[in-house]
Amino acid sequence: MITTIGFDADDTLWQNETFFRLTQDRFAALLAPYCPADTLHAKLLAAERRNLGHYGYGVKGFTLSMIETAIEVSRGTVPADVVAEIMAAGREMLSQPIDLLPHAYEAVAAMAQRFAVVLITKGDLLDQERKLAQSGLGDMFHGVEIVSEKSAQTYTQIAHKHGAQPQGMVMVGNSMKSDVLPMIAAGGWGVHVPHDLTWALELADAPQDCARFAQIKTLAELPYLVDRLIAAHNP
Amino acid sequence: MITTIGFDADDTLWQNETFFRLTQDRFAALLAPYCPADTLHAKLLAAERRNLGHYGYGVKGFTLSMIETAIEVSRGTVPADVVAEIMAAGREMLSQPIDLLPHAYEAVAAMAQRFAVVLITKGDLLDQERKLAQSGLGDMFHGVEIVSEKSAQTYTQIAHKHGAQPQGMVMVGNSMKSDVLPMIAAGGWGVHVPHDLTWALELADAPQDCARFAQIKTLAELPYLVDRLIAAHNP
Repeated sequence: MITTIGFDADDTLWQNETFFRLTQDRFAALLAPYCPADTLHAKLLAAERRNLGHYGYGVKGFTLSMIETAIEVSRGTVPADVVAEIMAAGREMLSQPIDLLPHAYEAVAAMAQRFAVVLITKGDLLDQERKLAQSGLGDMFHGVEIVSEKSAQTYTQIAHKHGAQPQGMVMVGNSMKSDVLPMIAAGGWGVHVPHDLTWALELADAPQDCARFAQIKTLAELPYLVDRLIAAHNP
Repeated sequence: MITTIGFDADDTLWQNETFFRLTQDRFAALLAPYCPADTLHAKLLAAERRNLGHYGYGVKGFTLSMIETAIEVSRGTVPADVVAEIMAAGREMLSQPIDLLPHAYEAVAAMAQRFAVVLITKGDLLDQERKLAQSGLGDMFHGVEIVSEKSAQTYTQIAHKHGAQPQGMVMVGNSMKSDVLPMIAAGGWGVHVPHDLTWALELADAPQDCARFAQIKTLAELPYLVDRLIAAHNP
């Protein structure tokens, strides 16, 4: 019954949010003359939320939201050299090194021997492709899907595109909101691998009393979990 | 032999560059105190070219390149309210109305009756999806490929993904550089439909003495051209 394993990329296979946090710290230092850090972070988050429908996910939109927030908190007085620093910080994120999370390589390799494995990620197209290329994991995936949103419909379409049914698909990721809940809503299985750092807009409550939901501490547990899911479904 | 027709989107099926030009005029008016329009345009184009490897294609990267250019030509003195105006201009581009080019609907419909038709476009993922959704053409396409670059390899991969060979694929678009030359390099057919406005970074010379190249004035000619290509190949 399980034919396909979907893997989220950022903060599931490699570090990502940590680079956003470092950039936000640098942003807070730059804007310290205008605004305390916690207020700044709240305003930045509000800008990101407001702009999501225009910019979508990724570093370019994040950079534009930082500039917008800088103008807002400075009441239009932020000097151009601070804007230039914000843009430089954004560009640096686009060349962040790839730091694989523990067991990521082994988990993808183990799953690829038994199932179709598909990378499913949001963000800027070019940046996500760059990170995948640098990760060294690219050749193991049967498919790569860079999408603008992870909805139940997205997962259903991806399953069909790979000749599968969502009922036979397991999605593995650190975002309850994007990786777990919509995959379960589509009829599949959601496996949550929490990361210490998760973006506020990706948080959601775990599903209650759902046989198609599981949580593991690290990707090392994934092969055993999948065996258990299969055994439970074929008693 | 011809099984698949690829259509470029921006300035092939609907207007796009015209919105970039309008925004550049607005940008020139904003920066007029610092720089004459032609110098500004040259510096903006240089920034776009410089940033392409970081930002890829699309409105978000264009907006960031405008801000970078504004800081450059003002020698770091551009006020924040001008930066805010530039960002507003960028956001407006992300809600530009869809203005279909003449014969676009009919040409896609005619091709879709006889071949697999695939939309192949660069740019920001979310924005390209939005434009396709608003175009009313979405249901006619057998596939939609939003890619970070249009290379010969890209076209070969897309052909294979749709169960075709590049030798059996015709790509139709306004960019000699992105739509025509790499499709021909992949072994397929390139059909150029020039647009009055084409971005400087998409210009290239037409291929010489190439039987797999054709040029048409409007998409109305496409069905006849494809008949002619098929007849010439099956005498």
